[in-house]
Amino acid sequence: MLEKIDLKKKLSKEEYKRVAPDLEIRLGQLQRKIKEHGIPVIIVFEGWGAAGKGTLINKFLLPLDPRGIQVLPTLAPNEEQTLRPFLWRFWIHTPERGRIHIFDRSWYRRVLKERVDDGVDSDDLRNEFDDIRAFERKLTADGTVIVKFFLHISQKEQQKRFRKLEKNPALAWRVNETDWKENEQYEDYVRAVDEMIERTDTGHARWTIVEATDERFATIKIFQGFIHAMEDKLAEIEPQQEAGRADAAGESARSAPVVEGLNASILDKVDLSGEMLDEEYRERKKKCQSRLRELEHELYIRRIPLMIVYEGWDAAGKGGNIRRLVQTLDPRGYEVVPISAPNDIEKAHHYLWRFWIRIPKAGHVTIFDRSWYGRVMVERIEGFCSRVEWRRAYREINEMEGHLTNFGAILIKFWLQIDRDEQIRRFRERENIPHKRWKITSEDWRNREKWDDYRAAVDEMLYRTSTTYAPWTVVESNCKRFARIKAMQTVIERVEQRLEG
Amino acid sequence: MLEKIDLKKKLSKEEYKRVAPDLEIRLGQLQRKIKEHGIPVIIVFEGWGAAGKGTLINKFLLPLDPRGIQVLPTLAPNEEQTLRPFLWRFWIHTPERGRIHIFDRSWYRRVLKERVDDGVDSDDLRNEFDDIRAFERKLTADGTVIVKFFLHISQKEQQKRFRKLEKNPALAWRVNETDWKENEQYEDYVRAVDEMIERTDTGHARWTIVEATDERFATIKIFQGFIHAMEDKLAEIEPQQEAGRADAAGESARSAPVVEGLNASILDKVDLSGEMLDEEYRERKKKCQSRLRELEHELYIRRIPLMIVYEGWDAAGKGGNIRRLVQTLDPRGYEVVPISAPNDIEKAHHYLWRFWIRIPKAGHVTIFDRSWYGRVMVERIEGFCSRVEWRRAYREINEMEGHLTNFGAILIKFWLQIDRDEQIRRFRERENIPHKRWKITSEDWRNREKWDDYRAAVDEMLYRTSTTYAPWTVVESNCKRFARIKAMQTVIERVEQRLEG
Repeated sequence: MLEKIDLKKKLSKEEYKRVAPDLEIRLGQLQRKIKEHGIPVIIVFEGWGAAGKGTLINKFLLPLDPRGIQVLPTLAPNEEQTLRPFLWRFWIHTPERGRIHIFDRSWYRRVLKERVDDGVDSDDLRNEFDDIRAFERKLTADGTVIVKFFLHISQKEQQKRFRKLEKNPALAWRVNETDWKENEQYEDYVRAVDEMIERTDTGHARWTIVEATDERFATIKIFQGFIHAMEDKLAEIEPQQEAGRADAAGESARSAPVVEGLNASILDKVDLSGEMLDEEYRERKKKCQSRLRELEHELYIRRIPLMIVYEGWDAAGKGGNIRRLVQTLDPRGYEVVPISAPNDIEKAHHYLWRFWIRIPKAGHVTIFDRSWYGRVMVERIEGFCSRVEWRRAYREINEMEGHLTNFGAILIKFWLQIDRDEQIRRFRERENIPHKRWKITSEDWRNREKWDDYRAAVDEMLYRTSTTYAPWTVVESNCKRFARIKAMQTVIERVEQRLEG
Repeated sequence: MLEKIDLKKKLSKEEYKRVAPDLEIRLGQLQRKIKEHGIPVIIVFEGWGAAGKGTLINKFLLPLDPRGIQVLPTLAPNEEQTLRPFLWRFWIHTPERGRIHIFDRSWYRRVLKERVDDGVDSDDLRNEFDDIRAFERKLTADGTVIVKFFLHISQKEQQKRFRKLEKNPALAWRVNETDWKENEQYEDYVRAVDEMIERTDTGHARWTIVEATDERFATIKIFQGFIHAMEDKLAEIEPQQEAGRADAAGESARSAPVVEGLNASILDKVDLSGEMLDEEYRERKKKCQSRLRELEHELYIRRIPLMIVYEGWDAAGKGGNIRRLVQTLDPRGYEVVPISAPNDIEKAHHYLWRFWIRIPKAGHVTIFDRSWYGRVMVERIEGFCSRVEWRRAYREINEMEGHLTNFGAILIKFWLQIDRDEQIRRFRERENIPHKRWKITSEDWRNREKWDDYRAAVDEMLYRTSTTYAPWTVVESNCKRFARIKAMQTVIERVEQRLEG
């Protein structure tokens, strides 16, 4: 999922000055709360070499009382440490109640650097992920708050920073051969990081990827990430109190200013300018459709199940896109499943049940027009499930998809992206063209008002459920023709990859 | 851990008649509660062929309203099922809210029968355990109660039952070749069951091993297991209500009679008659101690850490036993760590922290005189931690021990067992002999009063934390000499095994 992150994110000096002071005050307030309630806090800083861990940790420390906080750098294990199980050196440095321990690199070193450099076999790696999850689960079950940041910069940015350091005689020592090796192996590390996040982004100890190209942006994202995590914890501990005290004592509960766009990295990066003329469209559509029909038979013979998920904004063109995809397929081999609000029987079951009963047999194709992702979009935003429920849903969904793909299924997930202007244009068109009027309801207008909420939810969905085994494909859909070809092309590629693999 | 279970457990007809009717009434009450609160309930019956699953399920059904309940037999997957991921056929049969689904065999078939018969590679097996845990976690997080029974009989008992069935023309069809094959492979299955329980006995979906030699005993244990699980759930949902309503409405909350001894299988099986005369003792002690010293050096050279845990009743002889064990060891290579109540610094950390900071370096030996098992004994019984905390501790402890043994540590755990009479004899002796008087305090007398509570806690501890990688050894300690030699001998064997392995 790292490759989906928009690394151009920036914050102007003015905007930084507008928001930073209040956030800093809030950090101080929260530290006092941490002490008052005896909450142990662990903050993990992982990230690329030269991503700015040191600087950003300092920015974070500045507004805090140093007596309650400790920074623990994690280097290669020394002899004392290699003579004990790898979690030992972290266990013994877990914070006392009421204290904050910041790990500058951490137990994740094991599944990043040591993994890439030393090569670890798959069984050992699984043990280590299991151990890490168990470690974090034990601590959070006991009341510890764990906040994990991954500071992300591009390969080029890293090169640039290394060169700059090397030019400065006072700092040149900070760059050595292994740093340059990391830069060369950037792609290997990306895969390791993706897998690390996939396997350890749990409801109780979540990862935040921090776009670290711009220091101001990264600083604010870290401040806000920490504040949100602590406010969640406090809401658990003192749900009433917190609100009451805010009015009374001036230590206002959620006083920190909200900085928009901190979490919309993926959608912001999408370039919607792609277009396709009719002629090219017709030609490519024909080719794609005939290839799709061949592949459908191939899948049947090889007994491979294929599942395609369509999600997207209202009026993004899901229906039309799906129709083109299946137009020439053998109807005995595929099924399109439209998903709307659950009925009574469905409501009486686990929310995933209604999808389980519809998964295809091996060799068949099922296309879901909307899907289980409703849990982390409409159900989240409309309050049809609780915060705890939708937050744990990311992992539940990843696990379900892992089970399906382990069985051998190909799972393709499309997010059809349009911008707000395009949506309103299409809404108006639907209202004005009699045979399209049925497509637009007052609900669509209501959803549109919640565009920003949906945007944040979509971004988080793309981020937390884009796995190595079931990645999301964002389909730029301002131009419907472009979108249809991209979807078909993606299906063809993914299926071909699998058939060859 | 199966081999530790006492399969001679029985219940007399009179005792059965005394308790069964009230338990049956309670089952009916609970079913109405399940409906009222819309709780989905899953009951899993696994166990040996001819262990009596059918009969016991029937006994369970009898007092219940059949409209709210469904029995789902799990056979070998049919074609429809093999064309989908293995959890599919269970997902689609998860119960609606308010209903009870009984699985006669279940998803565990995969890690038992299919594993032993077909041979599954270790990576697949891990996936399957992961999938099963995730499946159960998702359902219980959503409110489902999962109760899992494993019906246990001995290899001989199974043979006896098969033969009896074969002699009866009407029932002979129930025994076929694969049943006899299962009996031949009994030991392979035992290992598979042990590992299954190790990996899937979680706080939210616990296993109960049911000694199924005697049908009456098994019936009552199943009734009680189900009742306890449901009462735990109701206590969560309606903590106040339940108690209040019990007085008012006559549907009394915990009206079911308590049947003692249902859970004390392991300690009951221990034969305390072992004795050793002084002469034999001296001779064997000498040999053991000299071998231990050799092994200590061997461990040092090979950089293998050794941890030995001593737990046991007050006055069971832990101190004396440890002294003999270390008597001839090189003091630079070992440490004895006495564990008592945690100090303030320790209390400010996770309960496992104070043990982590004391684990030995590779090549060294640490002996814990009492240990992390305090969590599930004294802390449980004295209320120093909550029910939720000690119940999840079994898994936390198993994970920690897994991490240690994966690293290469040898972990030996002794439970020093004496009976009540022997304890009182030793208490009196301590009071009467001036130089031993310091050993006995009023706390010892208080603990003795809670003998039955401790007994149940010890049994559950032995049961839930006896893993393939860190099994418990019960040391029969009515005769101290016998106990000391057994402990030394066990250490020698475990270390030798490891050095050879």
